[in-house]
Amino acid sequence: MNAAARLAARGRPMSRPNPAVGCLIVKEGTVVGRGWTRAGGRPHAEAAALAEAGGLAAGATAYVTLEPCAHVSPRGPACADLLREAGVARVVVGSPDPDPRTAGEGVARIRDAGIEVDILPTPEVADSLSGYLTRARLARPFVTLKLAVSLDGQIAAASGESQWITGEVARAHVHSRRAMHDAILVGGGTWRADQPRLDVRLAGLAHQSPRRVLLSRGIAPDGVTVINTPSQIDRLEQVQYLYVEGGAQTAGSFLAEDLVDRIELYRAPILIGEGRSALGDIGLESLADAHGRWTLTERRQLGSDSFEAYSRSRPEEN
Amino acid sequence: MNAAARLAARGRPMSRPNPAVGCLIVKEGTVVGRGWTRAGGRPHAEAAALAEAGGLAAGATAYVTLEPCAHVSPRGPACADLLREAGVARVVVGSPDPDPRTAGEGVARIRDAGIEVDILPTPEVADSLSGYLTRARLARPFVTLKLAVSLDGQIAAASGESQWITGEVARAHVHSRRAMHDAILVGGGTWRADQPRLDVRLAGLAHQSPRRVLLSRGIAPDGVTVINTPSQIDRLEQVQYLYVEGGAQTAGSFLAEDLVDRIELYRAPILIGEGRSALGDIGLESLADAHGRWTLTERRQLGSDSFEAYSRSRPEEN
Ligand SMILES: NC(=O)c1ccc[n+]([C@@H]2O[C@H](COP(=O)([O-])OP(=O)(O)OC[C@H]3O[C@@H](n4cnc5c(N)ncnc54)[C@H](OP(=O)(O)O)[C@@H]3O)[C@@H](O)[C@H]2O)c1
Ligand SMILES: NC(=O)c1ccc[n+]([C@@H]2O[C@H](COP(=O)([O-])OP(=O)(O)OC[C@H]3O[C@@H](n4cnc5c(N)ncnc54)[C@H](OP(=O)(O)O)[C@@H]3O)[C@@H](O)[C@H]2O)c1
Repeated sequence: MNAAARLAARGRPMSRPNPAVGCLIVKEGTVVGRGWTRAGGRPHAEAAALAEAGGLAAGATAYVTLEPCAHVSPRGPACADLLREAGVARVVVGSPDPDPRTAGEGVARIRDAGIEVDILPTPEVADSLSGYLTRARLARPFVTLKLAVSLDGQIAAASGESQWITGEVARAHVHSRRAMHDAILVGGGTWRADQPRLDVRLAGLAHQSPRRVLLSRGIAPDGVTVINTPSQIDRLEQVQYLYVEGGAQTAGSFLAEDLVDRIELYRAPILIGEGRSALGDIGLESLADAHGRWTLTERRQLGSDSFEAYSRSRPEEN
Repeated sequence: MNAAARLAARGRPMSRPNPAVGCLIVKEGTVVGRGWTRAGGRPHAEAAALAEAGGLAAGATAYVTLEPCAHVSPRGPACADLLREAGVARVVVGSPDPDPRTAGEGVARIRDAGIEVDILPTPEVADSLSGYLTRARLARPFVTLKLAVSLDGQIAAASGESQWITGEVARAHVHSRRAMHDAILVGGGTWRADQPRLDVRLAGLAHQSPRRVLLSRGIAPDGVTVINTPSQIDRLEQVQYLYVEGGAQTAGSFLAEDLVDRIELYRAPILIGEGRSALGDIGLESLADAHGRWTLTERRQLGSDSFEAYSRSRPEEN
């Protein structure tokens, strides 16, 4: 199932408006078909994997990260039907589909054909679908906040100088992360100070440069979407994954409204001292409230910088 | 040799005013004697290890982290002579002794007896002698700066609330680190705000509570040594290892004068936002100057907090 989740990642973010799904067809211990949601959302992962497996799908097990769709659309048949017709012996599903057109219906239709269906949720599957599931649950994109700081949590010197804190490897990593998002957001202050291009400067990925969004009470520059408050991210259509790049006030505003799902923290082994702190006011009332919200989920070294990802622990979601 | 360095750590900090040295006697692949500098500096590591080895020392190899002493003192014989008399076949030395009474003399006296001597410096040995070597080179203690911060580098909420940022495991770790130092220093602000006890609250180690030092332009409270500027740490007699616990202004002052050799950074997975930053002014003129000074040398998880140690890279010392 986790191999299917890794496959799903290939579909992100170009699968929009559809979720990025992964599917593996396994027969007698051998992978005979692999599929993931293609750009624009079609073909679906199951259709692609079944096409690759061909006749070998009969009697095989299909691992699919999201419940197969039960609705026929002008753009293709229902995947539940495709799996039935291919004669698979068993389907393992990573996550039920909250889409009301499918919810439970996909599984039921497969079971009706006498095919065994198991639900096997894993954290990797949940991660691979976080944009889609967050939209379904909270009616907004999954929000990642990026911070690039010194060991003492500063994002710029007192003079405002902020180029560079992190090194080249970390900066290239940021570009690869941008390419995984549907939209990038900065605040009006950063927009005016840095005139950021907010594009993906990596060979082969430049065409994946995400939509640019500005948090500002002002008017929209050309080619940029403006939202006037953080909560207006719910209006960003077709955006499953939003990457917030700062500055401090913007980051603080998103945190104050509990609109951050993941923090990606780049830390350079330097000290700045009196400078500009990473975060503006986040509305914290007491230290006790600060605890229990963030869990370290990833850590790696990028040159001399460290990269860490923290996930927001929202108990109701477990 | 690194096993000898680990043994040496048992002598720290109670060996003062002597360096904490470790010695292993190895015969035919078996350790036959182990010694480290005892409280007050005597017996020396070599004397202890030879005593344990007894007659087995003849023909053995002695690994000793620091060049054996060449001077007879009222408190004991010269270790170079002890090694000669024991009839060891070979002596491996981790670091030459900068003490003018020994420097080169210890090695020479052993070689004169026809015993093979090799110098085998390792980073572990240098670390285990850092207090002693820093005193010899820079005429001041080795300074460790402790910081306990949130992910965004804050040491207190805007209200000043700072209990607690890190968890119990990290706080117990701080007490074990205090026990490894000869003295602990805080600034006048922290002294007045927190009335810190600065003792070691760990079973069995309480008697190792280090000397208390205050950085202040004011007068000394009872039982506390006051220094008026960071550079006056050179006056702290018998202190090889100094632990600086803050606050922000004090930490900044030490960094501004380049008097910090090691940073011990505890980080809790929390965000504070607008609060109190870990460091006051450190005199940084441009970001470029901030780079290349600190190297990550240790990292571990302490409950949900992370611990990292960074060493000051001083090229002239390599
Ligand atoms: N090292 C890094 O990772 C990094 C990343 C990004 C930026 N930076 C630095 O950060 C600095 C800018 O940070 P900053 O904190 O001054 O500015 P900022 O967060 O980029 O922008 C502040 C502006 O964002 C808008 N805004 C913020 N919160 C809002 C809310 N709740 N509702 C509506 N609008 C809101 C307002 O825009 P309007 O004024 O347009 O209404 C506000 O003036 C720059 O120097 C930049 O170089 C560093
Ligand atoms: N989370 C943590 O790790 C941690 C650790 C320690 C403290 N804290 C917090 O930090 C706060 C205090 O920090 P702070 O920055 O205000 O105070 P601080 O650094 O503890 O003390 C400042 C005082 O230190 C003396 N000082 C500093 N630099 C000096 C220099 N170069 N020469 C001579 N004297 C110097 C002066 O003392 P005089 O005024 O006496 O002359 C100065 O007023 C407290 O709220 C405390 O709770 C947090």
